[in-house]
Amino acid sequence: MCGKPTARPGRGRPPVYCSRSCQARAYRRRRQPLPAPGSPPAPRPTDVRARQRRRIAEAVWRIAAEQGLDAASMRRIAAEARVSLRVVQYHFDSKHALMVDALRLLHEENERLAQGRIPYDMTEPGALLRAVLDEFLPLDEQRAFALRVFTAYYARSLTDPVLAEVFLAAEQPLERLVADIIGVGEAAGSTAPGIDRVHEADLLVSGAVGLGLDVLHGRRSLADVRTVLEYHLGRIFPDAIPTSRPNPA
Amino acid sequence: MCGKPTARPGRGRPPVYCSRSCQARAYRRRRQPLPAPGSPPAPRPTDVRARQRRRIAEAVWRIAAEQGLDAASMRRIAAEARVSLRVVQYHFDSKHALMVDALRLLHEENERLAQGRIPYDMTEPGALLRAVLDEFLPLDEQRAFALRVFTAYYARSLTDPVLAEVFLAAEQPLERLVADIIGVGEAAGSTAPGIDRVHEADLLVSGAVGLGLDVLHGRRSLADVRTVLEYHLGRIFPDAIPTSRPNPA
Repeated sequence: MCGKPTARPGRGRPPVYCSRSCQARAYRRRRQPLPAPGSPPAPRPTDVRARQRRRIAEAVWRIAAEQGLDAASMRRIAAEARVSLRVVQYHFDSKHALMVDALRLLHEENERLAQGRIPYDMTEPGALLRAVLDEFLPLDEQRAFALRVFTAYYARSLTDPVLAEVFLAAEQPLERLVADIIGVGEAAGSTAPGIDRVHEADLLVSGAVGLGLDVLHGRRSLADVRTVLEYHLGRIFPDAIPTSRPNPA
Repeated sequence: MCGKPTARPGRGRPPVYCSRSCQARAYRRRRQPLPAPGSPPAPRPTDVRARQRRRIAEAVWRIAAEQGLDAASMRRIAAEARVSLRVVQYHFDSKHALMVDALRLLHEENERLAQGRIPYDMTEPGALLRAVLDEFLPLDEQRAFALRVFTAYYARSLTDPVLAEVFLAAEQPLERLVADIIGVGEAAGSTAPGIDRVHEADLLVSGAVGLGLDVLHGRRSLADVRTVLEYHLGRIFPDAIPTSRPNPA
């Protein structure tokens, strides 16, 4: 129907549609009513489409955060998103495609939120580094939620190369960003002597992620983790002003 | 049958056994043949029991490492361990009990292997610290395998308090051990000035675990991670001799 080649079965009728979502799309095309004269223009299909995909992805995030990825069957996702199973199948060809897209969307969302929260002020590299490291801690509901979802995905990405690619590609610029911030401090002469910014960035990012998860697990308090990171910030930037924000932990 | 109280159903026959494993035990007692005269003594039940439990736990580890914990159904575990479903049910009252015990056994196993590998020589705290950090890297098949299993469990432990308790309790002495090693170096005057051993230990353990997982994911090479850790070792112990082992990466 859509033009893609269809598998020729050994017996029975040759298939008309290449996939269930192709069939659903054809069905929608046939059912689409003509707009009544004078009615407001229908929302552009891309908007509805993006909103529905987002709604379904959010359902995946919620299930992953609360019960883990194994609980996310197509049926359960549809119920959680309050759409029909057909709608989920229309937007995502397979459960795997949905899983991968939901992860990609969460990465984009997090990136956007982090950019809003971090003051990109390179004149104070110490404070900027603190703001970047804060992004790994479950400082509010949104960050705690995202950490839970990422953890659910993390284990699965070890046995799923496609997921691993999305997962890890999105993480790679972080160490570079941290190294660059330390580099700016180095150029301004505000870092401790003998610092290797790349090696510092590697352990800082890896360590801060792990410490953030410890907070989520209830193994450490937020105040404890902040003290650890503040010590390492002070070690790299001896003159950085310690944070004076009220500590929520 | 075993003496524990049994649930009284609203209708039908009152149950004789408190659980399926209780029933299986009674069945085994009835079937146990008397030893033939002159035959070698039967192995002590505790040995057979421990060996079978271990065999079943190993099956859980393998499934978790290869396909994740969601793939570990009781039936699949029995098949992987090459025992009957009844045997699994005899040893473990529930799948959850089995999951928790398999994790506990892996922790014990790892602890035993690590103790064999780490030379507990406090006269060279720098070298000892390196050996401890090495334990977090997938340096051989066994350590890579254990890391995979732990990662599979990690995500689930976020939504399962009983699992979280086993998972985290076993990890807590690590930071203390690392801090103590740095403390011995401090007392001997071989650490850099101004070091806080507790804060150093916290970031080192958390960071090394994350870097080890990066190697497992294929995101970093073992050589890369070793270089990062060697830098931080050198920062804490300025006079520590750099490793001269052949690097397997």
